[in-house]
Amino acid sequence: MPSTDPASPTDRTTALSPTDRTALGRHSERGKAERRELYDVLDAGVICHIGLLMNGAPRVLPTAYGFDPDGPDQGGTLYLHGSVAATSLRAAPEQEMCATITHLDGLVLARSAFNSSMNYRSAVIIGRPRLVTDPAEVTLGLERVVDQVCPGRWAALRDSTRKELAATAVLALPLHEASVKVRDAEAGDDASDVEANAVWAGVIPVSVQYGAPVANSDCDLPVPDHVQARVS
Amino acid sequence: MPSTDPASPTDRTTALSPTDRTALGRHSERGKAERRELYDVLDAGVICHIGLLMNGAPRVLPTAYGFDPDGPDQGGTLYLHGSVAATSLRAAPEQEMCATITHLDGLVLARSAFNSSMNYRSAVIIGRPRLVTDPAEVTLGLERVVDQVCPGRWAALRDSTRKELAATAVLALPLHEASVKVRDAEAGDDASDVEANAVWAGVIPVSVQYGAPVANSDCDLPVPDHVQARVS
Repeated sequence: MPSTDPASPTDRTTALSPTDRTALGRHSERGKAERRELYDVLDAGVICHIGLLMNGAPRVLPTAYGFDPDGPDQGGTLYLHGSVAATSLRAAPEQEMCATITHLDGLVLARSAFNSSMNYRSAVIIGRPRLVTDPAEVTLGLERVVDQVCPGRWAALRDSTRKELAATAVLALPLHEASVKVRDAEAGDDASDVEANAVWAGVIPVSVQYGAPVANSDCDLPVPDHVQARVS
Repeated sequence: MPSTDPASPTDRTTALSPTDRTALGRHSERGKAERRELYDVLDAGVICHIGLLMNGAPRVLPTAYGFDPDGPDQGGTLYLHGSVAATSLRAAPEQEMCATITHLDGLVLARSAFNSSMNYRSAVIIGRPRLVTDPAEVTLGLERVVDQVCPGRWAALRDSTRKELAATAVLALPLHEASVKVRDAEAGDDASDVEANAVWAGVIPVSVQYGAPVANSDCDLPVPDHVQARVS
């Protein structure tokens, strides 16, 4: 349920981690405090992994997402979509779920297995999603998902048909209860391992690359600017 | 518990999806049938997302993994590791968990929002992990995790100390109950949208790039072959 006045944009400096569940245990020094940093992690991604209970056991599924920092839910709104026929989405509004967005930024090769690590940015959002029923918000949610994948794409597409909308479920997860964790550093080795100077240590940077667009076999139109912009 | 004879390597053509839980619902045509295809998805990755129940609600966390197709569990073994102090890992052996590995291969830009999609390879593994207690298997599990991140790295590192091993938990998840789903195709549009010829359609390839290794500030050794091989 919307719990803040949609006319009041979310304060991006609001503290994250308002509950015990999103307080970091291990490596709490990697935690980020500001809501703005959650939006930064969301901004940079294309897929999230959602966690749901299915017949009492956790299931983790990759899916697209979109978000609106000023959406109607407390802290803003994460939008998820799927077929109305998808078991996972049908079950979702009746239970708590988790959505995790992870960017792998580097392989941290320390001099020992124990100190080996990764550089990453990850956001964990916990909450009870609502099924979006307002037609305007359904459309907005789908627009957010489409434009998260390729900014500017939504404006290039025809309107969704009634039949398509009837076949699509949109879920809204509040961004209120969330944590952000970032590691961005070189390897941290034991002094004795550094002194031994026996093993190379460092970071292999990891990034996501978007390659040159490949037109459909049934399409002879030129690559539009919004697609080119995603790649550049 | 080990449920097959470790002396009998897993048959890579064994059918996947032995249970209702891993039978695909939506887009079952994207399902892969052979165990070999599960190993291919695992081979290509560096992190997985694990799903656990924490205080009754699902939690999804990114983590490193390693695997052994001929490991002691049915279907082979997925190895996960973490601090013995990590709440998530401490809770794990008492409950079912899910491990999902996803590779995003392309943004599929169709002429409609409805037909827009992604190309991907994903594996979902469900099971009850066991806490590895045999010292030899603990070491093997850690080796698998380290070498999954950077093949050949393990051999370059010093042995783990007793203190390090005491601080590390290794979990083994059977690869028995698993599904693999792959989409690898151009956009599938409605005939009327193709005919209208109004919107560019195609695929933006997505790949993970490993950049040039950056040596630690306290390391002046040359980049070793096993690190260079990860990047090349």
